[in-house]
This record gives sequence, structure tokens and C-alpha cells, in this order.
Amino acid sequence: MKKIINNPNDVVSECLKGIELAHPELKYTPELEVISRRNPSPGKVGIVSGGGSGHEPAHAGYVGKGMLDAAVAGNMFSSPSPDRIIAGIQEASGGAGVLLVIKNYSGDIMNFEMAAEMAEMEDIQVKHVIVRDDVAVPDSTYSTGRRGIAGTVFVHKIAGAKAESGGTLDQVQAVAQKTCDNLRSMAMAMSPCTLPAVGKPGFSLGDDEIEIGMGIHGEPGVARTTIKPAKEIAQILLDKILDDYDFGGSEVALMVNGLGGTPLMELYILNNEVGQLLAAKGIKVYKTLVGNYMTAIEMTGCSLTLLKLDDELKALLDAPCDTPALKI
Amino acid sequence: MKKIINNPNDVVSECLKGIELAHPELKYTPELEVISRRNPSPGKVGIVSGGGSGHEPAHAGYVGKGMLDAAVAGNMFSSPSPDRIIAGIQEASGGAGVLLVIKNYSGDIMNFEMAAEMAEMEDIQVKHVIVRDDVAVPDSTYSTGRRGIAGTVFVHKIAGAKAESGGTLDQVQAVAQKTCDNLRSMAMAMSPCTLPAVGKPGFSLGDDEIEIGMGIHGEPGVARTTIKPAKEIAQILLDKILDDYDFGGSEVALMVNGLGGTPLMELYILNNEVGQLLAAKGIKVYKTLVGNYMTAIEMTGCSLTLLKLDDELKALLDAPCDTPALKI
Repeated sequence: MKKIINNPNDVVSECLKGIELAHPELKYTPELEVISRRNPSPGKVGIVSGGGSGHEPAHAGYVGKGMLDAAVAGNMFSSPSPDRIIAGIQEASGGAGVLLVIKNYSGDIMNFEMAAEMAEMEDIQVKHVIVRDDVAVPDSTYSTGRRGIAGTVFVHKIAGAKAESGGTLDQVQAVAQKTCDNLRSMAMAMSPCTLPAVGKPGFSLGDDEIEIGMGIHGEPGVARTTIKPAKEIAQILLDKILDDYDFGGSEVALMVNGLGGTPLMELYILNNEVGQLLAAKGIKVYKTLVGNYMTAIEMTGCSLTLLKLDDELKALLDAPCDTPALKI
Repeated sequence: MKKIINNPNDVVSECLKGIELAHPELKYTPELEVISRRNPSPGKVGIVSGGGSGHEPAHAGYVGKGMLDAAVAGNMFSSPSPDRIIAGIQEASGGAGVLLVIKNYSGDIMNFEMAAEMAEMEDIQVKHVIVRDDVAVPDSTYSTGRRGIAGTVFVHKIAGAKAESGGTLDQVQAVAQKTCDNLRSMAMAMSPCTLPAVGKPGFSLGDDEIEIGMGIHGEPGVARTTIKPAKEIAQILLDKILDDYDFGGSEVALMVNGLGGTPLMELYILNNEVGQLLAAKGIKVYKTLVGNYMTAIEMTGCSLTLLKLDDELKALLDAPCDTPALKI
């Protein structure tokens, strides 16, 4: 295992310290592994997300004006404990309530909901949405129902913008839920990743093999096949998304996401194919994000996300945000 | 070889098409492989950079308000031909002259200088600076003198800001040259990269081996050694930089750059170490960039860059820019 780390047990805390050093507008709370805004906009609804580490820049990279107020990090690929989440809620609370954006993994849901109950006892009003954007499989290793993956970033963006504009907790939750409802993703992996404390890859793929529909923790997908041209990969991923939801005639936001080890060049090549396929179907891409937004350590591969837009979502997507990993 | 590509000969053009699709404010000129601003600020000095492809987001990702007006892409790891560069100069020319930011590789210098002469014949005034930030080796495979690597992004930023603020060609060149003079970088590689048309890695490293000082095309560095903790890697790279140039007591911009395949988590862990080492030496970090800014396809590893700042450079670094890969 060759990684730029010190003790494998310290990777999460040292990463978050490195984020705080690079971004002085963010505050790191040691032990509780929370990154929060040093100067949140006063009186607004707070937005909190989080989950296991290893998906950087998610979630700490989305803390800042117009997106999250706090991100709570679990250990590598492990849900954060409720005491960490309650600390994140406290950091994010400005008196107008807090929305939790939870990816659909059983551990995350249990711990975030437990923290929400504890926060309510402290008179912080808490609501949540659950992201289930991955259309690959109906249930998975760590989830009942669909997994939450890269589309989560769009939920952060839109909920954050609504909160920044003065929306109430109910309004912020409603638009975050609409985003979840309109969101579909599908992934493909080409190589595994290695948890630092384990020291060897979590699975193996043949020299010319890829797995369609793999999850961001290496959970099984729907098929193993040989590597295909970018054009076919785009088609396979997009077909699964478009079969699942009617995007016909609508405007969409598109994310072409890298899983950590894939060069940006390949993501742009994929975007070129996806763009052509969508145009041929009369689906207009209003905004495109290409890059490493939700990763699986150094896994190579990609995911596609489509979000169906309406005027409200377009305006919130276009609203300014200023975070380490996304600035609009 | 597992890559998200179609024909290996089409990777550059398809990548640039994918960039244009994702960023409608940018224009792709086919065949000539130029990405330029659709609506450059009128009457200002144009800034052009470029070089071999495979270093994405460099250079097309730095085209936009406050940075480059045009980026010229060569084939993978190959200098762009003069006809491509002259096309880039023409796109960038707004009547106030054009500055070329050239990385110090023999092919780049020859072709950019030839294009500059051709532009002068078209009455476009052209000046240039040459970036030689890599302190690893005095000469290298493709360069006489030091190689130009990730620090080039700081030159784009500062020259672009000066041009945007209305600086003359002489003024823009002068501040770009000051940036080059104040700039030092040092890299480390953990795994090789594969050119799509070659299909196998350009070199090999043992399972626990890293190469200190390797170039962004896999050019030899200064030493092979076993993988070290992040703390020691930070020390080795920083020592070489600080031995070369007196940063004592000054404020600096710091870039912790990934070579393409390195997870962001590891770059932030490295930043945590670098930040502590610099603080211990009384060197104040004014601004930090952590991410994949100048890559070598999917190579894993990193580089550190320090830029000594003064008030002028600080103001130009802080000036707004809006490009796919850097927004301030």
C-alpha cells in the first residue's frame, strides 16, 4: 500500500486539519470530526451532511456559504456516531432549525436520526431528507433501498441556496426533497480502493474488467464486463438512468463524477459522449459539473447523475456558493 | 489498459469537446486544439499558455476571466505545433499584445517562439515568460535547465489578474516574470502513468517504492526510496525547496498538487504536515491550493509549490477569476 499518510488511524483527523489549514474560513472540531463555517450567515436554517470518510471532497469540501454549515465525518467508510452528528447540528444551528442531508445507508440513517432526537431535546428543530439517487440496485450491502451517491452534492447545493435566501426549515426541506425526487445516478468502477487500516484492496477486478453499478464503498453492482469504449460506457450508464425516470423534454443538471483515481481527461471525454446522447434525446443540459465530487478513495471509475430541473431548481443551482470543492 | 476513452488518437480532441460542452463560455477550435474565451474582456493583454496534453486541468481548465484567454493543447505529452499556438495567440489577441506562459521544455520553447515570430508578422505584439519552478534536477530529459511544473498555475493566475486590471504588456510580463522568479516546486511519484496510444506504463516502481523529484512526464528524479510517512515526504520535498530559495520570514502561496490518481484526502493530510513545517520556520501561508492542478494522467504522487509573495502579488492572487479549474 502506497499512500501519503501517517498512522492509518489518524487519516480522518489529519485530513480535516489539512482542510482547516487550507481554508481558514472553516473550523475543525477535533475528536468530533466536524468541519463547520466559522462565520455562518446569521439566523438562517442550518444544513448538515456527513457520512463515512473516504469520499473526499465529500462532505467537508462542501461546507461554506451557500451550501453546508457543517459536515460530520465518520471513520473510513463508517457512519459518524451520534455524538459527532449532534456536534455538527449544534455548530450549524442558528435558531431557525437544521436540515440533515443523509445518504441512504442504514448506519447513517440510524445515527443521524438518533442525533436529531437528541437535538430536539435541546430545542433545536431538525428535519431531514434521505438521498437515494443510485439506480443500480434496489437494495445493497449497507442499505435498504437505493444507495445515496454523487447526486447528494446537488442536494447540498440546492438546500444550501434555499437556506441562504432565507427559506424556512419547511421550505428548505421541501426543495431538498424535490431535488432528491428528481435525481438519478449510475456508476461504473474499473479498479478497487484500499482502506488505509486494511492495507489491501477490498475486491479485485481483472485486467480488462469493469463493474457496472458498483457502489462507492465497493458494494456489488449489476454486471461485470470487459472495458468498453467511452461511448458505450456513456450509453450503458445513461440507459439505466433514463429507463428509471422520465427526463424527456426537460432541462437537467448533469454531473460526470470521478471516483478518485480517474484522470479529469477521461471524465471530459465521457462528458462529450453523454452530452451527445442527451442532445439526441432532446434532453437539454442546463449546467454540467465534471470532476471528483464524490469519490471512493483512489477507486477508478465514474458516475453519472441527472437532476431534472424546473425554474425554482435552476435559480437555486445558479445561486452563488463558496466552498472548497464547489464555487458558483 | 483500462481508460474511459474511445480511439487513443482522439483523446485530446474529445477531451476538449467535453470541456466546451461543460463550459459554454469557452470555445473549442477543432483541429487546432485551442480552448479560448468566447467573450474576452475587450482591449486587454491576452494571456496564452499550453503544452502537451495529459496534465488536465492544465491548461484548458485555466481559461476564463482573470486567467488565460486561450490554451493550446499538444498531443499527449507533446508540444503543440506552431500553427496551433498561432491560432491560440489570434484567439487571445485583443489589440494590446499577448503574453505567452511557457513551461521550460525544449519543444515548447521552440514552438512557442516560432509562433511568436509568426504573430509579430501579423502585427500582434508578443512577449513571453518561461516557468522553471521544479528544483529537482538542473537539466532533464526534455529540458535544458529546470522543468516547468505545477507552479505554472500561479503564473497564469497572476498574469491573468494583471491583464484583467488593465496592465500593459510590459507590466503583465514583468509581474509574470517576478512570479516565475519567486516560485519553487518539488514533486514525488508513487506510480507511473500510461499514454493511451502506448497502452502500458512509461516506467515501473516497486510495490513500496517512490521516486523523489520525478517530472510530470515520468522524467527521472533524484532518488528512489521506500514509501515514507506523510510527515517525512513533506520534509523531504520542502527541504529541497527551502534549500534552493530563501523564503524566510516571507508570506507565501502554497500549492499541494496531486498528479492525477492521488486521493484528495492524502493531499490534505500532506497539507497538514507542510503547514506545520512552514509554521515552525516562521513562513506564513497566505493562501493554499490543494487539489489536482497539474497532473500526469493517472500518476499517483504529489508536488509542493511555494510562491514568495509581496503586496502586489497578494492583490493579484486575490483578484477574482472564473475558470473551470480555479475560481477565486
